Amino acid sequence: MADTLISVDLSESPHTNENVHNRWHPDIPLAVWVEPGDDFKIETYDWTGGQIKNNDDAADVRDVELEQVHYLSGPIGVKGAEPGDLLIVEILDIGAKEEMNWGFNGFFSKQNGGGFLTEHFPEAQKSIWDFHGMFTSSRHVPGVKYAGLIHPGLIGCLPDRKMLDMWNSREKALFDTNPDRTPPLAALPNTQSAHMGKLKGDERDKAAAEGARTVPPREHGGNCDIKDLSRGCKIYFPVYVDGAGLSMGDLHFSQGDGEITFCGAIEMAGWLHIKVDLIKDGVSKYGVKNPIFKPSPITPKYDDYLIFEGISVDETGTQHYLDVHVAYRQACLNAIEYLKKFGYTGAQAYAILGTAPVQGHISGVVDIPNACATLWLPTDIFDFDIKLGKDGPKKYLDGSIDIPLAPDL
Amino acid sequence: MADTLISVDLSESPHTNENVHNRWHPDIPLAVWVEPGDDFKIETYDWTGGQIKNNDDAADVRDVELEQVHYLSGPIGVKGAEPGDLLIVEILDIGAKEEMNWGFNGFFSKQNGGGFLTEHFPEAQKSIWDFHGMFTSSRHVPGVKYAGLIHPGLIGCLPDRKMLDMWNSREKALFDTNPDRTPPLAALPNTQSAHMGKLKGDERDKAAAEGARTVPPREHGGNCDIKDLSRGCKIYFPVYVDGAGLSMGDLHFSQGDGEITFCGAIEMAGWLHIKVDLIKDGVSKYGVKNPIFKPSPITPKYDDYLIFEGISVDETGTQHYLDVHVAYRQACLNAIEYLKKFGYTGAQAYAILGTAPVQGHISGVVDIPNACATLWLPTDIFDFDIKLGKDGPKKYLDGSIDIPLAPDL
Amino acid sequence: MADTLISVDLSESPHTNENVHNRWHPDIPLAVWVEPGDDFKIETYDWTGGQIKNNDDAADVRDVELEQVHYLSGPIGVKGAEPGDLLIVEILDIGAKEEMNWGFNGFFSKQNGGGFLTEHFPEAQKSIWDFHGMFTSSRHVPGVKYAGLIHPGLIGCLPDRKMLDMWNSREKALFDTNPDRTPPLAALPNTQSAHMGKLKGDERDKAAAEGARTVPPREHGGNCDIKDLSRGCKIYFPVYVDGAGLSMGDLHFSQGDGEITFCGAIEMAGWLHIKVDLIKDGVSKYGVKNPIFKPSPITPKYDDYLIFEGISVDETGTQHYLDVHVAYRQACLNAIEYLKKFGYTGAQAYAILGTAPVQGHISGVVDIPNACATLWLPTDIFDFDIKLGKDGPKKYLDGSIDIPLAPDL
Amino acid sequence: MADTLISVDLSESPHTNENVHNRWHPDIPLAVWVEPGDDFKIETYDWTGGQIKNNDDAADVRDVELEQVHYLSGPIGVKGAEPGDLLIVEILDIGAKEEMNWGFNGFFSKQNGGGFLTEHFPEAQKSIWDFHGMFTSSRHVPGVKYAGLIHPGLIGCLPDRKMLDMWNSREKALFDTNPDRTPPLAALPNTQSAHMGKLKGDERDKAAAEGARTVPPREHGGNCDIKDLSRGCKIYFPVYVDGAGLSMGDLHFSQGDGEITFCGAIEMAGWLHIKVDLIKDGVSKYGVKNPIFKPSPITPKYDDYLIFEGISVDETGTQHYLDVHVAYRQACLNAIEYLKKFGYTGAQAYAILGTAPVQGHISGVVDIPNACATLWLPTDIFDFDIKLGKDGPKKYLDGSIDIPLAPDL
Repeated sequence: MADTLISVDLSESPHTNENVHNRWHPDIPLAVWVEPGDDFKIETYDWTGGQIKNNDDAADVRDVELEQVHYLSGPIGVKGAEPGDLLIVEILDIGAKEEMNWGFNGFFSKQNGGGFLTEHFPEAQKSIWDFHGMFTSSRHVPGVKYAGLIHPGLIGCLPDRKMLDMWNSREKALFDTNPDRTPPLAALPNTQSAHMGKLKGDERDKAAAEGARTVPPREHGGNCDIKDLSRGCKIYFPVYVDGAGLSMGDLHFSQGDGEITFCGAIEMAGWLHIKVDLIKDGVSKYGVKNPIFKPSPITPKYDDYLIFEGISVDETGTQHYLDVHVAYRQACLNAIEYLKKFGYTGAQAYAILGTAPVQGHISGVVDIPNACATLWLPTDIFDFDIKLGKDGPKKYLDGSIDIPLAPDL
Repeated sequence: MADTLISVDLSESPHTNENVHNRWHPDIPLAVWVEPGDDFKIETYDWTGGQIKNNDDAADVRDVELEQVHYLSGPIGVKGAEPGDLLIVEILDIGAKEEMNWGFNGFFSKQNGGGFLTEHFPEAQKSIWDFHGMFTSSRHVPGVKYAGLIHPGLIGCLPDRKMLDMWNSREKALFDTNPDRTPPLAALPNTQSAHMGKLKGDERDKAAAEGARTVPPREHGGNCDIKDLSRGCKIYFPVYVDGAGLSMGDLHFSQGDGEITFCGAIEMAGWLHIKVDLIKDGVSKYGVKNPIFKPSPITPKYDDYLIFEGISVDETGTQHYLDVHVAYRQACLNAIEYLKKFGYTGAQAYAILGTAPVQGHISGVVDIPNACATLWLPTDIFDFDIKLGKDGPKKYLDGSIDIPLAPDL
Repeated sequence: MADTLISVDLSESPHTNENVHNRWHPDIPLAVWVEPGDDFKIETYDWTGGQIKNNDDAADVRDVELEQVHYLSGPIGVKGAEPGDLLIVEILDIGAKEEMNWGFNGFFSKQNGGGFLTEHFPEAQKSIWDFHGMFTSSRHVPGVKYAGLIHPGLIGCLPDRKMLDMWNSREKALFDTNPDRTPPLAALPNTQSAHMGKLKGDERDKAAAEGARTVPPREHGGNCDIKDLSRGCKIYFPVYVDGAGLSMGDLHFSQGDGEITFCGAIEMAGWLHIKVDLIKDGVSKYGVKNPIFKPSPITPKYDDYLIFEGISVDETGTQHYLDVHVAYRQACLNAIEYLKKFGYTGAQAYAILGTAPVQGHISGVVDIPNACATLWLPTDIFDFDIKLGKDGPKKYLDGSIDIPLAPDL
Repeated sequence: MADTLISVDLSESPHTNENVHNRWHPDIPLAVWVEPGDDFKIETYDWTGGQIKNNDDAADVRDVELEQVHYLSGPIGVKGAEPGDLLIVEILDIGAKEEMNWGFNGFFSKQNGGGFLTEHFPEAQKSIWDFHGMFTSSRHVPGVKYAGLIHPGLIGCLPDRKMLDMWNSREKALFDTNPDRTPPLAALPNTQSAHMGKLKGDERDKAAAEGARTVPPREHGGNCDIKDLSRGCKIYFPVYVDGAGLSMGDLHFSQGDGEITFCGAIEMAGWLHIKVDLIKDGVSKYGVKNPIFKPSPITPKYDDYLIFEGISVDETGTQHYLDVHVAYRQACLNAIEYLKKFGYTGAQAYAILGTAPVQGHISGVVDIPNACATLWLPTDIFDFDIKLGKDGPKKYLDGSIDIPLAPDL
C-alpha cells in the first residue's frame, strides 16, 4: 500500500496540524518531500475544517466562519521541481474518511457569502448526503441517488512572490470598485483564522497578512471546482517555486458544473492517492498558463439528459450583453421550475443542481446580445420518470420533507 | 419517403422563395400546414443565403451583408397548435444538399460583426470544409478530421406581438447604452434585405420595420447554436401563435460549444427530416420558459480530451467578477497557444475550436471573484498525437498552409 | 459528391446487372476500377434481391429461394493491390435507397434454412420495419423504436484459387458427416440461380459450379454480420488476387449480436459511400488472417441494459461442454420469456432480439463444463418501462398484434 | 460505515473460517443473517485461498490444488426470503484487502485444468499485477495499464436439494462420456479439501460428498465470471431455500470476456459492500431462470478498439458447425499474433487478453457453417500506439521480459 504522507484527525482542529494551511503564500514551508514517480496518500479535512455537522439544523451553515476556508493538506515538495516545470499529478484514487461517511451541501446566507442564486435563496439551508459505497443519497432530498464523481475541488502549487503580488493587486482593484458590497466582490487577505502550516512567529504573521485567500481559482489551478477533475485524471500544473509545493483539499463526493450552491458540492473529508512526476521546462514547451488535464477513463455514464436553455436576459427582463453567467442562471432557474412540478421545493431542486453531475455548457457566445447556456440534468438519477409526456407531470413528492433552513438572526 | 414540404434552389436568391424569411414577426403567413404526428422534410439555405463561396479568398466573408441573415425555412403551421402548447419536434435526420457537399467557417472583420476573439483576429478569414460522408476535413486546416454532429443552429416558433415587443424594447435599451459601438451591442430591426416570406405590400413593410432580427437566441429558442441539438434530438418548444409557426435554418455540419468563430460553425445548406407533435397546455404543465430538449442516442463519442482551464482575468490582467465569458475566452486562448506549439497558426487553431465538437463547460461560478470555464478539446480528431509528453511537442505542420485572410479595405 | 460506381435498379432482377454477383470465385471479372485514396458510392440490392415484399403475409419468407443469396455489388478493382496487401476500407456513410424506405426481418421455416431458435419457431414469420430518418419501428412489433446502426452484413475480397479450394473442401467434409440434415450443415456450391457478374459462357458455368456460396463468414470476412461494422468504421481486409476485388451487400439497418433470426437483421437495399486505400504487404507485417477493424466514432449510445445470462445446458436439460452457442441460446430464450411477461408474443420478442442493437457477450468459456453467455437488452428502445420492480411487470401489449406467420405447406 | 459481517484473515487458512465454504449444498448452515434493505460488507479470500504468491516463480500455479477452489464467503441469510423470490443484490463497492494490494493471473498446466488456449500454452505461467489505486500494471507484462472493472467472479444463492441433484446428475452424465480426459469434462463432487462452513461431523461428510463443485456457472449464477457484473450493478438472483443463502468470492480486479486464461482474471482477495432486498415471488412474476442484472453507471470507458474476427474453422483447418467457442478461440489467436508483432511474447499477449477489459462478442451464429466471434481489444490500455499504419508495426518491447513459466515435472 502507498504510504499516507499527511494524516488528519477529524476530532482535532486543523490548526493543530502543521501539514495543513488555508492561505497561499510562497513562504509556507514544504510539509513533506517526495520523488518524481512516487505515489502516496494524503488525507484532508473537509473545506470548513469540520464546522458543519450531520444533523437537521442549518445554523452551522448560517454561522460558518468563512475566514477559515479552505483547509488544504500540503505543501508537498517534489524533488527536482523548478519554476517553469509542469508537475504531473495522477489521481489514482479518492475516498471518504471511514469515520465521516457522509457529506454536506448548503446555501450560505446572502449576508455571509451567498451563492449563485442568492437572490432567490437568501437564507442558509443545509442537506446531508449519506455515502453508500459509490452512491450517495440524502434524507433531505428524496427521490435521487447518484454515483459519485469524487474530486478535489481545490488543488495546485504554491505561487511565487511575483504571482502572489499580482493576485493580490488585481483582486484588490476589483474589490475597491464596490468595497461595501454584500457578498463582497473578492476575498482579500485576512489574518483572521489564517493557518500558515509550519510557519511560526513574525514570519507567520507577515505571511498571513499577505497570503492569498484560497477562494478563487487562479493561474495555478487552485479552487477550480471542476467536477471532472476526478479520480483517474492526469493533471499538468505549472510550477512556480522550487519543490513545486502541491496542496489540495475541498474534496467533493459529487458536484454539478458551476458548483452553484457554493456550500458547495457534496463536501467531505477524505484521502487522495496520487502519483507525481515532472515535465522539465514544460510551461514553455507547451505554452501553458493555467493547468491542463486529461479526464479519467472511469466516470459515471449518465447519458440521458433533460437539457434546459437559458439566455442572458435576467429575471427582471433586463437584457445583458453575451453574459454567460446570467444565461446559466436562467437555465438553472428553468430547471428548478421544472422540478417543482414534480413536487420538489425550490431548495431541493437547487440542491440537486448543485450536487448531481449536471453539465453546464456554454452553448452560444456570439449571437448578440444573448449568450446561450445549457443545463444538462441527468434523468437516470431520479427514482421516478422525470421526462415530459402528454399527460403532464405526476407529483412524486408530497412536500412533507424539505431542506432545513436557518433564518438570519 | 417523407415529403419535402419546403424546397430551396441554391442557384436562386432566397428572396425569390416565399417559404423563406429572415425576420421574426407574428404576421408572417404560415408557409405550409401539417398535422400533429406528421413527419416531413424541409430544405434550407445556408444562413447567409449563398454569399460565401468555395474558394481560397476571404473577401466574401469580409464583405458579407449581415442584414440578410438568417434565411429560415417556414413558418410551418401545425394544426391545432395554440398559444401555451408545447410543440414537440423530433429531428429524424439532417443532411447536406447534394449540390453543396461542403461548408464554410470564418471570422468576420471586427468592423462587420467580429466574433468571440475579435481583438485577436480582427480581420476576415475563411476556411472551407469538405464533407466525406459523415466526416469533414479542410484543405485550409490540415491534420484534423471530425465526424459531423449535424444540427440546425436556429429553430423556433413565431413570437406573438407581446413577445416581439418585449424583445425589441429590451434590446433597444441595451443598444442605447452604447449606440456607436463596433460591433454593436444588439442587432435591431432593420428593413434592409428583410425577407418576410409571403407577406406583401404595406403589411410587409410594416412587419419588416418591426421584425426582430434572427441573430440572438431568445425565449422561443431561435439562434441557440447548440451543437447537441442534433439529429435524434427531441425538442419541446413553447407555442405563442395559433399554428405554432415553426421555422428553421442555419444548419451546421459541426460546431464547438460557443460557436466562437461566429461565421460560424461549419455552415451549410441542407435538409431536415422532422416529426412534429403537441403537448396541449404544456407550457404551464411543465413550467416552461425556454425550450427543453433530450439529446440524441447517436452522437460522436469523442471521449478523450485535453481540458484547458480559464479564469475571469482578462488578457490585460484585469480582474472580472465571476465572468464566464471572460473565463471561457481565456480557456480558448490557452488552447490556441497550445495548438500553436504543434505548428498550427493562431487562425487555424481558432478555426478548430469553432468547428470541432469541443465542449465548453461552466466549471465554477461561485468562487469569488473568478469564474472558471473549461474548454474540452477531443484528442481523437487529430491525425497526430496532440498529448503532452516529457519530450515536448513535435511540430506536425510546417506552416506552409494557412487560412485565407482578406484585409479590411 | 462522390460518384456512384455501381447502381442497382430495384425494379429489375439482379441477374440483369453485370456488376452484381452471388458467388465467390477468383474468375469473376472486376466490375469497376478505382485508385487507392478514392472515395465513391456503391448501391446494393437487399440480400434476397427483392424476394421479400412490404406486406403482411410471410409466404414470401417461407418460399424464399435461398440459392439466390446474397446479391453483392462488385467486385471492385483497386489499382496496385496485390496478394498479401491489406485493403483499407473506410465506410464514410450508408443509407437506404429512396424508393425502399423500409426493411424486413423474418424467421425461415425450419425446412428452408431455419435459424438460431428454429426448434422454437419452426415456421416462417415476417415483420416489416419502416425507416424514419435514423430510427426504425415496426407495425408488427409495437412498443420499440431504435436508432439504426446501419452496416453491410457482407463485405470482403475475392478469394484466390487456393483459398476457394480450401473453403470448398472443408465445408464439404463437414456436410458429408450428415448430408441429409435439415437445415443442412453447410451450403455447398450450387449452380441454381448462380450469378457470376460479367462472366459468360463455359467459363461462367464452370465458375458457377465451383463458386463458394456467400453464406458463411470466412478468412476474407464475407458474411460476418457484425453489427458494429457500421458507418464510420475502418476495416483492413486481406487481399488474395491482383486488384483485390472487393464486393459488398446484405445491408442491415439494425441487428443484434448473432443475427439470431437469420432472415436476418432488418434487411434493406441501399448504398455505401466508401474510401479505399492499401497497406502494402500488410498481411505479413501485422500477422493478419481474418479482417481487423476499428469501430466508428458514431454509434447509438444505448447504455442501460437488462443482461440475461445463459449457460451451456440446453432446453432438455442436457449438459454441453463449454458450448457458447448453447449458452447464448439459453440467454436469448430467457430474454424472450421475460419479454412475454410484458405482453409480447414469443415471435415478437425473438424479432426484437434479432433486430435491436442487443449485445451478445462471451462471458465465461473456461469454467467446466458450462460456458456462460450474456444477452444485453437495451432498455431505452422500449416505449415503456421494461425494468424489474417489486410490483411485477405491467402488460404493455394486449396481444392484438402479432408477426404474420405462413405455415409450411 | 457499513458493518463487516464476514471477515477473513489472509494469514490463516480459509478452513479455519466457519463463514467460508467451497462447495454448494443446501445443508450448509447460514453464516449470518440480515434484513431486506440492509447494506453491509463481506470479506473474501482469493479463489485459491492464498495458494499463489507474489513472486516470479510459477511453480505455485503449476502445483495448485484445484480441489480447494473456490473459497466463498457466506452463506448469508436474508430474513423473509423464500423459494421463488428474487434476491436483489446491489454491489455498492468492491476493493482489495489492504494487506494484499496485488493480484495474479496465470495459465494452468494442461495436466491440471488447462485453459482456453491450453494446446498453445500447455505449461503453467504466472504474472503478478500491482494495484495503483484504480489502475493495475504488471512487472511481467510491460506497456499496459488498465483501470479496474472490479467484480466478483462468483456469486449466487444456495441450491435446494432438487437443483443440486439435477446439477450432479447432468454433469456426471457428461463426465462419463470421456472419464479419462485431461482436463476432465466436468468437476464432480469431491471430498478432498471440501470446506462446508459451519457444518460438522457426519452431516459435513455427507454434504461434502454430494456438494456441487463451485467451478461452473449454473442456474443460480455462481461462477459466471462476467466482467461487467461490477461495482454499481444490481443483480436479481433466484432464491431456492429459505433465507436465500447468498455466497460470493473469486474477486477480480480486471478481466476480459471469457476469462480465457482460467487462472484466471486478475485474482484478488478483498471485500464487497452490498445491499440486499427482495422481490417476493419474483421468479414467476418475471419468468426468471438464470440471474438478470443491470450494469453499473460507472465503468471504464475504453471506447477505441481493434476488433479481431474469428470463425469456426479450428487451428488445423477443420470446419466446425456454428461453434462460437472455436470462433472466439480463433479471434483470440489472431489478436495474439498481432500483439507479437509489437514485441510481446505469446504468453504476454495471452495474459493481456485474459486480464484487460476486452470484449468478446457473438457476432454471427446463423451463417452455416461458420460462427463469427469478435475480440475487442481496447487501444487506450497500451502505453504505445497499437494501431495499424502504412509503415508497419514498431517493436515496443525488446523481449527481455517474459512471464515466468514452471515446466511440468
